[in-house]
Amino acid sequence: MDKSDYRQHISSQFNAELEDVRSRVLEMGGRVETQILDATRALVSLDGILASQVEAADQEINRIELRIDEDCSQILVRRQPTAGDLRLVYAVIKTITDLERIGDEAAKIARMAISLAAKERTREHMLQVQHLSNQVRTMVHDALDAFARMDAEAAVAVARQDIVVDREYESLMRQLMTYMMEDVRTVGPVIDIIFCIRAMERIGDHAKNIAEYVVYLVKGKDVRHIGIDAMERQVLARPPDPAE
Amino acid sequence: MDKSDYRQHISSQFNAELEDVRSRVLEMGGRVETQILDATRALVSLDGILASQVEAADQEINRIELRIDEDCSQILVRRQPTAGDLRLVYAVIKTITDLERIGDEAAKIARMAISLAAKERTREHMLQVQHLSNQVRTMVHDALDAFARMDAEAAVAVARQDIVVDREYESLMRQLMTYMMEDVRTVGPVIDIIFCIRAMERIGDHAKNIAEYVVYLVKGKDVRHIGIDAMERQVLARPPDPAE
Repeated sequence: MDKSDYRQHISSQFNAELEDVRSRVLEMGGRVETQILDATRALVSLDGILASQVEAADQEINRIELRIDEDCSQILVRRQPTAGDLRLVYAVIKTITDLERIGDEAAKIARMAISLAAKERTREHMLQVQHLSNQVRTMVHDALDAFARMDAEAAVAVARQDIVVDREYESLMRQLMTYMMEDVRTVGPVIDIIFCIRAMERIGDHAKNIAEYVVYLVKGKDVRHIGIDAMERQVLARPPDPAE
Repeated sequence: MDKSDYRQHISSQFNAELEDVRSRVLEMGGRVETQILDATRALVSLDGILASQVEAADQEINRIELRIDEDCSQILVRRQPTAGDLRLVYAVIKTITDLERIGDEAAKIARMAISLAAKERTREHMLQVQHLSNQVRTMVHDALDAFARMDAEAAVAVARQDIVVDREYESLMRQLMTYMMEDVRTVGPVIDIIFCIRAMERIGDHAKNIAEYVVYLVKGKDVRHIGIDAMERQVLARPPDPAE
């Protein structure tokens, strides 16, 4: 399916509705990216005020999800979309669930930042935490970009990036555990940091989910749970030759 | 909406399709409950073989999700459901996503059980871990039961139960942290246990999500993100009096 395909409706009103939903998903995604950025900034700089703002802003993301969900349900009822249009609505319904949960993870990081700001301060490992956060935020950005451009190959690249993030998370976990064992007084704050990097790792998983919906949207193939190599083969596969 | 409502279709074939999807969601739910039970049993008894079986069985749950998802998409295309039928399909699409993620959390607990079985053994806190697991498994069971019986009040009770689970989780977290601080050699296994109880706490969240879809299905009202008391008011609200 090409992005231009769903513009070919007899009803220009239907076109406008699909385009509207699509652009609001991207707007919701932009807000979620900002939440990750701000939550991490609050964590690294132990900024309780910024962290509280992130927590409050999560409510608005929840409301956006509900509104888009309601609009999708209206489109299903009134327009009874088929083929590529239905896949678009389906991908939107799934994508906003993941975006909302990314928002939840960002809010959790913000709550940990508030907890940490109140404890004995630890600035150890913050560079690596920042790096992990940048990586998963880029994954979210690239997944939404793949959605906007309907680019299945870019979506596969996002899924592949999740492997790197998982490896980095595991390595940082081991460092944090060693650090705790060496100085038992750090257990409290380090557990908070462990929950933050866990939240970041999950944000990466959600970005990968979104990437999988993009492949479904573009190729009409469900590539969840099949592993990255099989996913890549599905995306790169030639369309069947009609002459064969 | 009453359960009998969606049985009143002109097409008995359509009835059969909806009933089939509904019963497969319940079957998927039953498998997921078993996964929680077995993963926790493997954890508490440090049974690596059982844990490996849980991990393997997660693949089948993923496949069931994809099949139900595909069937819902077919129903949307061919039947173009409206009103209560559309809400049912919508609730199913959302519910199976949460069930699949509960399956993922159970698989994580199983992986921790394998990791713990290979480490210095710790049997501390296992009674409380078992108790927490029982609670969230009951939540999943009750949420599915509310779905099967289309019982919005039972769904509210599930959402309320999530508050108890969160409190219990927090209390157990504090105990585990104190335990680590008192004996630094326990850090490795205790972190595994912390991730297990975190997975259980998330299973409770997913059960609550399913309960919210049940309220949406039965009452046509979206009660996500509004808090338990507002949710209860929505469910107990009298339908508007036509004479008013």
